[in-house]
Amino acid sequence: MMNLINETSRRARGQAALEAIDGEAGEKVVAALKDIAPDFATYLLEFPFGDIYTRPGLSLRDREIATIAALCALGHATPQLKVHIAAGLNVGLTRDEIVEILMQMSVYAGFPAALNGLFAAKEVFGLHGEGNGASD
Amino acid sequence: MMNLINETSRRARGQAALEAIDGEAGEKVVAALKDIAPDFATYLLEFPFGDIYTRPGLSLRDREIATIAALCALGHATPQLKVHIAAGLNVGLTRDEIVEILMQMSVYAGFPAALNGLFAAKEVFGLHGEGNGASD
Amino acid sequence: MMNLINETSRRARGQAALEAIDGEAGEKVVAALKDIAPDFATYLLEFPFGDIYTRPGLSLRDREIATIAALCALGHATPQLKVHIAAGLNVGLTRDEIVEILMQMSVYAGFPAALNGLFAAKEVFGLHGEGNGASD
Amino acid sequence: MMNLINETSRRARGQAALEAIDGEAGEKVVAALKDIAPDFATYLLEFPFGDIYTRPGLSLRDREIATIAALCALGHATPQLKVHIAAGLNVGLTRDEIVEILMQMSVYAGFPAALNGLFAAKEVFGLHGEGNGASD
Amino acid sequence: MMNLINETSRRARGQAALEAIDGEAGEKVVAALKDIAPDFATYLLEFPFGDIYTRPGLSLRDREIATIAALCALGHATPQLKVHIAAGLNVGLTRDEIVEILMQMSVYAGFPAALNGLFAAKEVFGLHGEGNGASD
Amino acid sequence: MMNLINETSRRARGQAALEAIDGEAGEKVVAALKDIAPDFATYLLEFPFGDIYTRPGLSLRDREIATIAALCALGHATPQLKVHIAAGLNVGLTRDEIVEILMQMSVYAGFPAALNGLFAAKEVFGLHGEGNGASD
Repeated sequence: MMNLINETSRRARGQAALEAIDGEAGEKVVAALKDIAPDFATYLLEFPFGDIYTRPGLSLRDREIATIAALCALGHATPQLKVHIAAGLNVGLTRDEIVEILMQMSVYAGFPAALNGLFAAKEVFGLHGEGNGASD
Repeated sequence: MMNLINETSRRARGQAALEAIDGEAGEKVVAALKDIAPDFATYLLEFPFGDIYTRPGLSLRDREIATIAALCALGHATPQLKVHIAAGLNVGLTRDEIVEILMQMSVYAGFPAALNGLFAAKEVFGLHGEGNGASD
Repeated sequence: MMNLINETSRRARGQAALEAIDGEAGEKVVAALKDIAPDFATYLLEFPFGDIYTRPGLSLRDREIATIAALCALGHATPQLKVHIAAGLNVGLTRDEIVEILMQMSVYAGFPAALNGLFAAKEVFGLHGEGNGASD
Repeated sequence: MMNLINETSRRARGQAALEAIDGEAGEKVVAALKDIAPDFATYLLEFPFGDIYTRPGLSLRDREIATIAALCALGHATPQLKVHIAAGLNVGLTRDEIVEILMQMSVYAGFPAALNGLFAAKEVFGLHGEGNGASD
Repeated sequence: MMNLINETSRRARGQAALEAIDGEAGEKVVAALKDIAPDFATYLLEFPFGDIYTRPGLSLRDREIATIAALCALGHATPQLKVHIAAGLNVGLTRDEIVEILMQMSVYAGFPAALNGLFAAKEVFGLHGEGNGASD
Repeated sequence: MMNLINETSRRARGQAALEAIDGEAGEKVVAALKDIAPDFATYLLEFPFGDIYTRPGLSLRDREIATIAALCALGHATPQLKVHIAAGLNVGLTRDEIVEILMQMSVYAGFPAALNGLFAAKEVFGLHGEGNGASD
């Protein structure tokens, strides 16, 4: 009986967490998976969001610090980094804090990874200043 | 004498393997190298295609499972991943099998790598559904 | 009702898959997690093994081709690569086929990744030849 | 005049930050660099510790969340991951919070990276349970 | 007194090195950081350019060989790779030497990384030949 | 006729290049491959050493700058990095130049990659100073 409840709440919990964290961007990813891999949308809701993000041991704000840092350091996941920079703002990180996290990645993954992360943040924050060096 | 035959057949074998596996996309890569690094086109024909893909110990279908998995996991080689998703179809993998391989990469390289691989497959398969989350 | 059954069978299915694929090595990983992160052992059984490896669309043999290729290419997961070289043998890959997969990774991830994968296979296969170059 | 003060305080600030964050492990890294690259010890004190970790915009606890996540996700920096798991404890993260960060990396960098991070934490925490799966 | 001079010259030295090495592209990166992370522009001038590139032990030409090789091998930093291919030309590398470096990366990071590096060089060199395989 | 000569000289050329560059360490790698993947030893002689390292467009010294930088930046190929630090000394790089290359990698791949590269160099150079921070 517990299992039935848990299983039902697991997916629902994941759906609720996705909405709270990623907002519309999360919905778009789920929608984009429908025609290529609908089961993967289910796994995405169930494991990362239903299982991990809803665990009580770490706040959503702290979890987004970890995610933004990891995606910036890995360097090959720019679309997801942008989603999680927006998610960070959704769960209580300030722009300045996100910039601090991204700058710190220069120490662990090098200046190019940090620069690309900062230019991703610039785009998410909607800043449009002098020529974006990332594409030069 | 054997060496002469082998050397001649090595490049020809590579050319034939490239055509059988990558089709027109392979030809385009070779053509694109002509003005920047023509010798690299030769190495590409000779080593990966002439030496490796034509070895008898593993079928082309199995080799493409390995290549699709590796390129999806590495995450920084999207153009080549697309070429090899198409190549997988050429040598007998089904769309569903390719989707299975890409989903499985979530376990070994994380959800972003798997998502980006699935959206690459979506493009190669010519599917045009609701907003592609990869660029959000 | 379906959910209750599925949830119960999900973990059991994962346990059975882990045993069939990784054998004793899988059990050791689960045991090693007990004092540091017991919930992670649960997730490991449920998601990779209960959800992914038990999907019908790709044989276990094909799944291990993908996993061995990805872990060899990533290069930072030698313990897991060894577990899955053994797993490959468990689900029907031959030693020669595994060697082919690892050699092919030289094309996609470079010769060092392939060499380190081959020396990992040498260890798993129990071969003890002339000085292991990997540690030179 | 400000520059002189800043330059002097930059290195001193870095030294103080290194001691506060990494403790004895940080001192050992600096000492180990003496005979191979003494200038690099200076840069290590000045840039990561003097410039970055001492910036006011993010707490040391939050900075260590980012560092632990990034090093776990990158996968090739186990010695530094261990130093920063210990550093995390020094600046206020609990063992449970560190385990949460490392488990979450399974979503972004895959299960092997998370497993290797958890086994590193197990070693730093001084836990000695049933057979360490990381070396199986 | 020395420190004051050094600190002043450190930033100036970095600015001069950035101009000599990266030319206009370096200026654009610094400008692009102004509204998102102005302090990071300072660090970029001070540490990589003020501290590292101006060290006497290795020529700028040799340093660019190392940087082009590393960025090509890493694979996730295409904007920076393009900047440094141009920088290599600025400090005395020939087009042919840069092509040799990039081709050699096929051995250490695989053919996709080398191909993507060569297509980046093709763009920087202003070559416009038959269909660029990188985007196929 | 040319092809016959080239094919014969290709392997011989590779063998000679391997000996000149890697010395005894290269021989050990070839020997270690004998019982697991003898054909891969052939490819290693033919492609990296017979084809690439013997090309006239870049000196062996410059090629080793590129290789040391790439292997340090990739971070997952420590055995090969050690072989090529020794190879760098064989073909004319000084210890100080190798240390410069490795320190510079902090900018492109982060401080942990640079630290691990420096500690690898320390081992190759035979330096035994105060506690090696890499394993702390």
